[in-house]
Amino acid sequence: MKVYLNGSYIEHTEAKVSVGDRAFVFGDGIYEVVRIVNGRFFMEDEHMIRMDEGLAGLKIQMSQDHRDNISDISRKLVSMNGLEKGQAKVYIQITRGVAWPRTHTFPDPPVEPTVYLSAEPFTPHKDLHEKGVDAVTVSDVRWSRCNLKTVNLLPNTLAKQEARDRGVNSAVMIRDGVITESPNANIFAVKDGVLRTYPATNYILNGITRQAVLTIANEENIDVKLQPVGEHELFDMDELFFTGTTTDIQPVVEVNGRAIGSGNPGPVCKKIQHVYNAKLAMM
Amino acid sequence: MKVYLNGSYIEHTEAKVSVGDRAFVFGDGIYEVVRIVNGRFFMEDEHMIRMDEGLAGLKIQMSQDHRDNISDISRKLVSMNGLEKGQAKVYIQITRGVAWPRTHTFPDPPVEPTVYLSAEPFTPHKDLHEKGVDAVTVSDVRWSRCNLKTVNLLPNTLAKQEARDRGVNSAVMIRDGVITESPNANIFAVKDGVLRTYPATNYILNGITRQAVLTIANEENIDVKLQPVGEHELFDMDELFFTGTTTDIQPVVEVNGRAIGSGNPGPVCKKIQHVYNAKLAMM
Repeated sequence: MKVYLNGSYIEHTEAKVSVGDRAFVFGDGIYEVVRIVNGRFFMEDEHMIRMDEGLAGLKIQMSQDHRDNISDISRKLVSMNGLEKGQAKVYIQITRGVAWPRTHTFPDPPVEPTVYLSAEPFTPHKDLHEKGVDAVTVSDVRWSRCNLKTVNLLPNTLAKQEARDRGVNSAVMIRDGVITESPNANIFAVKDGVLRTYPATNYILNGITRQAVLTIANEENIDVKLQPVGEHELFDMDELFFTGTTTDIQPVVEVNGRAIGSGNPGPVCKKIQHVYNAKLAMM
Repeated sequence: MKVYLNGSYIEHTEAKVSVGDRAFVFGDGIYEVVRIVNGRFFMEDEHMIRMDEGLAGLKIQMSQDHRDNISDISRKLVSMNGLEKGQAKVYIQITRGVAWPRTHTFPDPPVEPTVYLSAEPFTPHKDLHEKGVDAVTVSDVRWSRCNLKTVNLLPNTLAKQEARDRGVNSAVMIRDGVITESPNANIFAVKDGVLRTYPATNYILNGITRQAVLTIANEENIDVKLQPVGEHELFDMDELFFTGTTTDIQPVVEVNGRAIGSGNPGPVCKKIQHVYNAKLAMM
């Protein structure tokens, strides 16, 4: 696999960064994952806007030229890796760069950010979209700036691994008694035909697929309540589903061994899947 | 400067890790900083015990041989960099290793951890120890497993930088209305001769210097209350000070532009500094 690192297109096994890179020692960087279908980039503008918000949130300074190049680099990687047909994903990571000595404060003057991109083939989880997945509830131990898509992802990896260790697909994270997110996806619930999800505060990432689902709900006249689902309400919900760039729209049919609703993907989730898949295909 | 990376002793500018390293993409690793005075390692056992707790907390599997080698590697680096005389610090970072493709769950089977160590000269902040420092209060936005010394340090770097941007030395972090830590040190307060500090829960790192101060307090018959200081009590305190491996015992004489106590380093802090410095020198 060819990847891009700071100006060079190289084999992924050859791509190396300094141990002084602030992502290595502080997790000081942001990332994005963009979905590609038959060479077309899905909701790329939205990802780029969020990337800019992440850079601004961390005060990472990047030259406008380099920033504007991300889109071309992504396309070149898709081409070099022969991913123009079918499904693929591009991973973009930007860090504050390499600084010596290691010190918490930002390098002054600022250094050139590290820019790393990869492009890989991607296979949608069709079987999971049809059958749904199981999950367990875990405590949401993340920091309180979850709206920034940073590489400080240790709590997310620990929660996902805990779910796998407990024999299920993923986790439903709980903070202050309410459902926030999964370790790598947003969560929606349906009750009496009304869609519910955590509002876009500092306690969740405002997912691009989450935003697409809210748009679809609006187009399809599905009522939406931007109100968190309490842990105590979880099993009163008719439906539950995860949303994310590589998760798509994924029904959650069982949590902690108990069925959600009928224990099968529900009609609202299926309808949103249908419209979302059509948008992906129509690009 | 010579550093150690995965079996090799090399120039720090040559030390590079894969972009697939889990520390680079997830901040999935732990670290320690050990103080060295005239070639002797201060409280090394305590640091090694905490390192093991960190590895266990993150479930990073490391061969016992490699683990036992850390101490020898540290000494070799101190020698190679000519740091046997005077003060130095050793930085130790262990990550979950390199894994492809990038996925939140741990690599299965586990991969060899990445082991990186550096040794640098260190100059204690004598003037700050004598005069004290200023600080501002900031919100403690960290995750709720602060007891693990991981490289998910973005909130710490942001808080430290915010303090510098506001023209002061450091920050006093507030969570749920009480003082927790500074971005890179523990915090003690003194009121009517009694030492107060946050108890060693999941909301603070149980610093090695913090533990040394508690031992000194016991030896010197200074009463200790392991009870957080409320934000509203801050300016009722007689003294405030930071503690840490490279911070030592550092008085905080002003917060948000207001004096703490007399606005000068206080007697309890000075006494603890005195005993601590004697311990450092006596090694």
